[in-house]
Amino acid sequence: MNGKSRLSSPTGTQFLSAERAAEIVGTRGVPECVRGMAAYIRQDFLRWGDFDKRARVANYFSDGVIELMPISDESTYAFKYVNGHPKNYRHRLPTVMAFGVLADVDTGFPELICELTLTTAMRTAATSVVAAQVLARKTSTTMAVIGNGAQSEFQALAFYHLLGIREFHLYDIDPNATEKLMRHLSRHGLFARRFSSIREAVCGVDIVTTITADMTNATILTPDLIEPGMHINAVGGDCPGKTELHRDVLAMSSVFVEYEPQSRIEGETQQMDDDFPVTELWQVLAGTAAGRVADDQITVFDSVGFALEDYSALRYMRDLARKLGRTENLSLIPLLANPKDLYSLISPDGHMADSKGAVRLAGPCCPA
Amino acid sequence: MNGKSRLSSPTGTQFLSAERAAEIVGTRGVPECVRGMAAYIRQDFLRWGDFDKRARVANYFSDGVIELMPISDESTYAFKYVNGHPKNYRHRLPTVMAFGVLADVDTGFPELICELTLTTAMRTAATSVVAAQVLARKTSTTMAVIGNGAQSEFQALAFYHLLGIREFHLYDIDPNATEKLMRHLSRHGLFARRFSSIREAVCGVDIVTTITADMTNATILTPDLIEPGMHINAVGGDCPGKTELHRDVLAMSSVFVEYEPQSRIEGETQQMDDDFPVTELWQVLAGTAAGRVADDQITVFDSVGFALEDYSALRYMRDLARKLGRTENLSLIPLLANPKDLYSLISPDGHMADSKGAVRLAGPCCPA
Repeated sequence: MNGKSRLSSPTGTQFLSAERAAEIVGTRGVPECVRGMAAYIRQDFLRWGDFDKRARVANYFSDGVIELMPISDESTYAFKYVNGHPKNYRHRLPTVMAFGVLADVDTGFPELICELTLTTAMRTAATSVVAAQVLARKTSTTMAVIGNGAQSEFQALAFYHLLGIREFHLYDIDPNATEKLMRHLSRHGLFARRFSSIREAVCGVDIVTTITADMTNATILTPDLIEPGMHINAVGGDCPGKTELHRDVLAMSSVFVEYEPQSRIEGETQQMDDDFPVTELWQVLAGTAAGRVADDQITVFDSVGFALEDYSALRYMRDLARKLGRTENLSLIPLLANPKDLYSLISPDGHMADSKGAVRLAGPCCPA
Repeated sequence: MNGKSRLSSPTGTQFLSAERAAEIVGTRGVPECVRGMAAYIRQDFLRWGDFDKRARVANYFSDGVIELMPISDESTYAFKYVNGHPKNYRHRLPTVMAFGVLADVDTGFPELICELTLTTAMRTAATSVVAAQVLARKTSTTMAVIGNGAQSEFQALAFYHLLGIREFHLYDIDPNATEKLMRHLSRHGLFARRFSSIREAVCGVDIVTTITADMTNATILTPDLIEPGMHINAVGGDCPGKTELHRDVLAMSSVFVEYEPQSRIEGETQQMDDDFPVTELWQVLAGTAAGRVADDQITVFDSVGFALEDYSALRYMRDLARKLGRTENLSLIPLLANPKDLYSLISPDGHMADSKGAVRLAGPCCPA
């Protein structure tokens, strides 16, 4: 499971397409894939210090954002390209689209290019579960899902299979989205209820997952909706100006983040002063910081999505695709007989006249 | 030539492979491609203010670097992935390998993924020429090429065809590299001489191009080698700790850079104090700053490679490939009938039981 193992000889970039990734995940099932990713994520978070980390690099536009998320350890470099465009449904495109790359740090060669639209939905759900395992009450059985869009099935399936949640309370401003989520969950025998307000949906649940897409400072959750002991899995707010929780919800909670320098810019935490206390998740996993310490404590996982999760997800998809022989070759980097002779790509030596005769060799000019 | 025009409907990512790019460039010829790219680069530099710019994001390793170079205007986002690993010849891989993406800022959709290994060599040469056209003496006819590796042919051909250089003086620590460059240039009828030292190679030339790969603070050029009126096209130094010019060469010259915040980190200019004066090339092109003002002035183009040049190069390759119908479709982003229904990718509705019956619908729970 180490990042180092090569996908292939350094002469070819492997490609895992959106189509083939969907086939693989369809065959293996989301539960197995999310479980596998969660294991990789936990493993990688436990060696937090090995990674060269930074906040992702974002270009902001009127209707969305495009981000690059690089990370590396001593053997493997990974990055993800991802957008966030909440109005994309108008173009019949997903809000979030992504792809990523694994490269060998010894040579810089891009070994794998991989779809990450589907994979991101799974890795986000896997990360939510890894956090909830140490932050939610052990007795949790009910979860509200606020926002029933593209990622909601993955969250529900992950919490059902990996955390034992048995009842889902659904709400979305778009009833068709809720209908779609109900339909998919029913197929897996999950018990789901739809509600006509957020207040009703969150009433009495153990966990609230917010996964809305609006590019605004929304207040999906206000303090009056929060009950003692709740765990809030806040997934949707992930940009400057894009939040889901009222700041007083944060003030009354213990807040956990992925990577503090990024979360203070992008997360719910952007609403708070710089000295507002947050704990990085890896510390809880490593046992160097406390997670939940009391049954009536309110915990918030302020999830924005961090490059390390994509590193883990790329590793998982690479290993799975390799096992199943499902990658293709992509002519992304030219193959050269002599690496110093890039020009031969367009003017092969075979086509050339003998060099010696054609070049007018000359003696050295006198140095000044 | 505007970045906005779509490559295709938003349902498919186009791919221009290394193989097809080489075919296109081989057919059109390097001179035409470099000339076209130089025109695009000049055009884009002249609308400098339209771009959201930043220094590239680099991860450094013991044997090299991997960088991401994003840039955007109001319609198009571009980024390049590029490495720099001077010891890669040991692995039979190029020192520099690259690919890039053009995306639509309105949706975040990645419209084109394109090889940039060959393309980078051309765009670097094109940028060097754009700079030399305003910085070198108009009467220039001779150029020394120090470093005869993968990019040297492109520099020589660009300066021959676009700037009228008629005589090339070659030097490399690796005689085989010089031999290879001689061979390629001879095929195009270019007049080239090989020299056994840098001192001899640069003696009396109008322009010195340094394009070495060593990941060290080298001093390829020292002040005693510099003659009045020379233009130095310093291409090889492009990382912290990787320089080619003695700092006194900079001190005696007028120094021009691409994007000051990046060049002060990566360029020859990293050796100088923060207040050492540099001029951004776009200002000279726009006529808001002086380029060469005297025949005996020594000018340095401290080239590190800026994201805007790749934006231009990607636009050029996209437009050319589209004209020739040479791109392929890549299943990079999943196509969804309902963009909010990502889960349908792995569990198509057609396979599903009717939803209504299976879901246990329930009334609202009482709000607290």
